[in-house]
Amino acid sequence: MEAGVPQLKFNRMFFKLLSKGVFSLAIYSYRSTAYWNETDAAGIVHFSNYFRYCERAEEEFFKKLLGGFPGILSRYSVIVPRVRAACDYYRPIFPHDDFRVDIVDLELGNKSIKYRFEIFNESRAFKAADCEVVIAIVDPSVMKSIEIPGPLRELLKSVGARERNPER
Amino acid sequence: MEAGVPQLKFNRMFFKLLSKGVFSLAIYSYRSTAYWNETDAAGIVHFSNYFRYCERAEEEFFKKLLGGFPGILSRYSVIVPRVRAACDYYRPIFPHDDFRVDIVDLELGNKSIKYRFEIFNESRAFKAADCEVVIAIVDPSVMKSIEIPGPLRELLKSVGARERNPER
Amino acid sequence: MEAGVPQLKFNRMFFKLLSKGVFSLAIYSYRSTAYWNETDAAGIVHFSNYFRYCERAEEEFFKKLLGGFPGILSRYSVIVPRVRAACDYYRPIFPHDDFRVDIVDLELGNKSIKYRFEIFNESRAFKAADCEVVIAIVDPSVMKSIEIPGPLRELLKSVGARERNPER
Amino acid sequence: MEAGVPQLKFNRMFFKLLSKGVFSLAIYSYRSTAYWNETDAAGIVHFSNYFRYCERAEEEFFKKLLGGFPGILSRYSVIVPRVRAACDYYRPIFPHDDFRVDIVDLELGNKSIKYRFEIFNESRAFKAADCEVVIAIVDPSVMKSIEIPGPLRELLKSVGARERNPER
Repeated sequence: MEAGVPQLKFNRMFFKLLSKGVFSLAIYSYRSTAYWNETDAAGIVHFSNYFRYCERAEEEFFKKLLGGFPGILSRYSVIVPRVRAACDYYRPIFPHDDFRVDIVDLELGNKSIKYRFEIFNESRAFKAADCEVVIAIVDPSVMKSIEIPGPLRELLKSVGARERNPER
Repeated sequence: MEAGVPQLKFNRMFFKLLSKGVFSLAIYSYRSTAYWNETDAAGIVHFSNYFRYCERAEEEFFKKLLGGFPGILSRYSVIVPRVRAACDYYRPIFPHDDFRVDIVDLELGNKSIKYRFEIFNESRAFKAADCEVVIAIVDPSVMKSIEIPGPLRELLKSVGARERNPER
Repeated sequence: MEAGVPQLKFNRMFFKLLSKGVFSLAIYSYRSTAYWNETDAAGIVHFSNYFRYCERAEEEFFKKLLGGFPGILSRYSVIVPRVRAACDYYRPIFPHDDFRVDIVDLELGNKSIKYRFEIFNESRAFKAADCEVVIAIVDPSVMKSIEIPGPLRELLKSVGARERNPER
Repeated sequence: MEAGVPQLKFNRMFFKLLSKGVFSLAIYSYRSTAYWNETDAAGIVHFSNYFRYCERAEEEFFKKLLGGFPGILSRYSVIVPRVRAACDYYRPIFPHDDFRVDIVDLELGNKSIKYRFEIFNESRAFKAADCEVVIAIVDPSVMKSIEIPGPLRELLKSVGARERNPER
């Protein structure tokens, strides 16, 4: 069908731009600049700092959602230690480059939340890394993991989080 | 004189607000948030990170002035190693607090530049620290300090820097 | 068989002590102390620093093996950017705790090396984390990944590395 | 006097070696290696990390003195926030260089302690920096600075600290 051709072309361009990070369908986007102290002697951002960039994105996300990250503890009486963190590195971020961290997925387990992040080098228009972080929901009074509190679960779903178990 | 009284009152309020960092007469102001990874087990921003906050302010200042900090090297063929750094700490910055770094003075020596910074905890409305950093102007081809290039000197003076030697 | 019982008991104790990190069969072990600046406001070592601990273990391993890590570049003309890094966190490391990073596996691919690390909290006698890092072997003159140089491959195998492809 | 000549020569050599950091008369010496993550894109240790190196020296000093730095709080019921930190930088530390931090002076005020540190690049045999840190002695229950507890004062003097006010 003739009409399909331009649509297909549009789709291709759409996904190309999406994959380059020109725009995003992210749950939340955090933007910043790679500062000098975050680089190493190879002249690029040290790989450990990608995890800090992801955490900053998470902090800003919760700050916006809850009016400050400490809000999780004060509002829901839980703390959120990391139980897993992983990054796949594709291309570097250089000093003073502008970058963007997209939270592209928020998967709600019973007692944990899995984030997926995509990091884009905006100054050079390429994807720098894919990262994944899993946090546990812990009751600090007994230091045991507990179910995600219902109101927090609903709040996160209202901004794009999804259930790991779709039957839930 | 009657007329002096309200003026005096205004001055007092002016300096009180100024000292609290409510507004500033700074050459440049950099704003950010204290991220979790910048704090330590005392629950406050680690003292070494104040130096990184000052450097970030310097980077953003030059990025705005020159279109990117690497511009110093590419435009003026100099590098700027630190020869001195000092902070006096007054009060803490807590996780997720918003803070502001003011560059309040830029003193041009012959072969060096002295910055004075004031760091304000904006979330809690108090001054957190006074800092000072001295950078040398170095020719990277011979690794020797040289005079501040004339055009850089003029550019910095146009945004508020002053000569250490007023006769210059 | 009667004779098997004490052997079994010994094995159980052996694996229990091994799993607690009391001793190790590691390719290389790096020991240090958790410094104050490596902790965060939760009162424990920040999760991003586990990656730095692993890298330090790698640096000390190569420093011992080659007489300095820069030796890789100068001796084999390769650089080793990270392409993947992942940690599973089990239990925390507190300020001033002594910890140990074991390199427990070194898997040689064609153009990459995969490390597995185990991190033990020696002050509290438990395993803190399992980590994995993959580095690419890159020719810096063309910035392309190349085969692990033969002499480096042999050197690594002489201290316990293994081939990913056993037929190699 | 003839006899003075060799003595003078010895003195010159002594001070030359001392100034190069070949040996030291320090109260405490901490040794480590400059790790990759501590460097920046200039290929040298980032200036902010010198403050972390000094703090590590302080931690190891107290760990040895008290059996763990937390011992200050548990044994003397005080915390020790930094009120001032300053470094003069002379020459760089490169990746994998071995360095040494000497605590060369410990000055006891009424309610504060001033450290002086000298940092030597041992791999390249030169002094890298002079640093100074002032800590306050604070009662954490009221968050006010108090006199250095008598037993702590005596303990520090027994290992080389001196009174700021000699009449004390």
